Amino acid sequence: MSARAGIVVTGTEVLTGRVTDRNGPWLAERLRELGVDLAFTAIVGDRPQDMEAALRFMAERGMDVVLTSGGLGPTADDLTAEVVGRFQGRPMVLDAALEERIAEILRPLMKRWPDLDMDAIRASNRKQAVIPDGATVLDPVGTAPGLVVPPAEPGGGPTVVVLPGPPRELQPMWSTAVETQALKAALTGATTYRQKTLRMFGIPESEIALTLREAESEGVDLDKLEVTTCLKRGEVEVVTRYEPDRQEVYEAFERVVKARHADTLFSDDGTTVDEQVASLLRGAGPPERSRPPLTVAVAESCTGGLLSARLTELPGSSDYFKGAIVAYSNDVKIAQAAVPPELIERHGAVSQEVAEALADGARTQLEADLGVGVTGVAGPGGGSEEKPVGLVWISVAGPGEERLTRSVNLPGGRFDVRDRATTVAMHLLRRALLAETPAAGLPHS
Amino acid sequence: MSARAGIVVTGTEVLTGRVTDRNGPWLAERLRELGVDLAFTAIVGDRPQDMEAALRFMAERGMDVVLTSGGLGPTADDLTAEVVGRFQGRPMVLDAALEERIAEILRPLMKRWPDLDMDAIRASNRKQAVIPDGATVLDPVGTAPGLVVPPAEPGGGPTVVVLPGPPRELQPMWSTAVETQALKAALTGATTYRQKTLRMFGIPESEIALTLREAESEGVDLDKLEVTTCLKRGEVEVVTRYEPDRQEVYEAFERVVKARHADTLFSDDGTTVDEQVASLLRGAGPPERSRPPLTVAVAESCTGGLLSARLTELPGSSDYFKGAIVAYSNDVKIAQAAVPPELIERHGAVSQEVAEALADGARTQLEADLGVGVTGVAGPGGGSEEKPVGLVWISVAGPGEERLTRSVNLPGGRFDVRDRATTVAMHLLRRALLAETPAAGLPHS
Repeated sequence: MSARAGIVVTGTEVLTGRVTDRNGPWLAERLRELGVDLAFTAIVGDRPQDMEAALRFMAERGMDVVLTSGGLGPTADDLTAEVVGRFQGRPMVLDAALEERIAEILRPLMKRWPDLDMDAIRASNRKQAVIPDGATVLDPVGTAPGLVVPPAEPGGGPTVVVLPGPPRELQPMWSTAVETQALKAALTGATTYRQKTLRMFGIPESEIALTLREAESEGVDLDKLEVTTCLKRGEVEVVTRYEPDRQEVYEAFERVVKARHADTLFSDDGTTVDEQVASLLRGAGPPERSRPPLTVAVAESCTGGLLSARLTELPGSSDYFKGAIVAYSNDVKIAQAAVPPELIERHGAVSQEVAEALADGARTQLEADLGVGVTGVAGPGGGSEEKPVGLVWISVAGPGEERLTRSVNLPGGRFDVRDRATTVAMHLLRRALLAETPAAGLPHS
Repeated sequence: MSARAGIVVTGTEVLTGRVTDRNGPWLAERLRELGVDLAFTAIVGDRPQDMEAALRFMAERGMDVVLTSGGLGPTADDLTAEVVGRFQGRPMVLDAALEERIAEILRPLMKRWPDLDMDAIRASNRKQAVIPDGATVLDPVGTAPGLVVPPAEPGGGPTVVVLPGPPRELQPMWSTAVETQALKAALTGATTYRQKTLRMFGIPESEIALTLREAESEGVDLDKLEVTTCLKRGEVEVVTRYEPDRQEVYEAFERVVKARHADTLFSDDGTTVDEQVASLLRGAGPPERSRPPLTVAVAESCTGGLLSARLTELPGSSDYFKGAIVAYSNDVKIAQAAVPPELIERHGAVSQEVAEALADGARTQLEADLGVGVTGVAGPGGGSEEKPVGLVWISVAGPGEERLTRSVNLPGGRFDVRDRATTVAMHLLRRALLAETPAAGLPHS
């Protein structure tokens, strides 16, 4: 029996969609690593009765632990500590040491904004030092302390971990929380599940439904595994969670998937295409096949910088990424990316010829081993019958004489077309690199 | 009394954080526009008992309407229609007309992937034509139909609107749903609230707490307004929701905020800095002050394409955005962005001088009226005592002889530093454009 957990994300700004919640997904990953089973995430506004109802729901559904994020700030709509205290049956008390600690943290802030009224700020932050009696304090990373608040009676419901809203404060404070006695006690008995991820590119999700049925007809007992499939940025992801003694059942299932999807399966070890491209650029491969690292450059139009931003997302990307030309106007395509003007004239800016010229231009102008060119119609305007919104041409030149070029018709609006086009480009880049690195230990070449 | 609604987002991939939910926030906005009060969003995995518990919670809390997203696909873990049918006390029936409709939709797909087993796919999609008896069908945009499912007994709980997971299917189907009799009946009696947004840049959130107290001491009855404040990508956002007959109370509150924050308030009409920059580039302003539109180009290093991607997010941005050089390596800074090598040698790549040279280079090399240069240390590596992780220099050159340059020390990890730096750059660009457009009708110049 693994421990069960719920997450309560608070904040009217999150509930109403004005702010994207990054804490729920991040905490979900951490719980999984601990072998804790996350059953619910609830998002509630800054209304105490709604927050309390969510806590009560979690308690009734038998959660061992509830994590809350947000509502610890200095303004009056920040109510979490008080609501949790009442819910756990613990009176609120001023923690004098904590008050002093917060005052210390505020001192440098005062210097940065010398015009502020220091006493008034301290008063507004004093509120943050009033906590439920008996709670374990998690030292603030910003100015807001976190809390681990067990129920007043042992066994009287879930232990509530109260964390601040800003991710850069929440994340280190969660690491502190897992080390506390109070949380450890609530989590005893968590079993560690195994989780495996298979990723495919270039097939519809319905194909996986067929594969699951085929696996069952071949005798794989899928009831012993928890398989979920989803479409994610144009890739199909199959995630399987299982108890360690069911390893063999998983392996039989994996064999069926690999046999049916050999040509589209690109990851069986949890790596993303971004990580694979990075490691291929760094020269990854078995020792006997090792080759020097390679560099890449981009000339992109409709994606407007997103492909470049994606290639620089991983730390250390300056090792292999030289730069990009975002060639939005035709002038820039010609002057910066060395696209011959007659190609644009003859074939239009969205064409195979211009995509290839952009790839060549990125490579030669930015002196990289590989160049990627992207041109397309992101919409909503600019489409025609011949070249509709969603048509994108992508080309990869190098590292040798080869060039890989393809066009796709991407569904969805401007956001989707731009986002999906970067995924297609990453996969094309991966293929170009694999062609250069035979038998590199990756699923297929 | 406004109608109350809840959202249930289903899918283990969303619950476990592997996929970011875009439907909850989008539906939240739509409910607000309809004057419906969103009280809860719940995220649940693909487990029928958990989905049912979430529905029951929504019913117990008195919701008039519950919207669900996801779980309508062809795979066995897609259970929403069945769970909702059982919850509403309606038996599941095969809708023959719907089955034919789905078969029609699948025909072109067959052509795209000619290797697929057509009968098997049709069987796996037949499941999608089995719906709760008495439900209103929303025509599929992809292959999954949506549903509006009232309770079996009138007044016997919320009406449930079942929508598919992919945003590009969900969004048009929601428009269809609001036109159905079944949903209209459930939403009768919704009052329209007003909502106003004030946005500030360059102050800590705690300052707003002081302003709220000051407003109260000046006699503004804040109990009559629902004010929420939040920090969002480095900006402070104050959103106020109120019933129409409280307009005067809101105006009094707004006057206090404007008086205290005249120098940092940049939006009082809901516009974002992105929209303001776009409209300033297009030459916005009162007729007597009108000036020709301007163009902008970017040379960015640590932000790796994100500033360019942000400037091209809005449709029609090709009217004013020429392009960008993502100058990640020093070679590219020198060769493409025309940064004098001795500046990098003397001051380092992260310096005021190089930021200014990048801004100049973007402007001259890409032939734009304004150039923006960004250079900084995004981390996690590459920081030093003198130039720590988070230090970013930003410069805007043009449209005249002027140049605006500033440095910031941004908190957080690589993601935050890169994201925040684009926000600072947008505000600097806005300032440069406002200096060019005196009395342009914007909050301050």
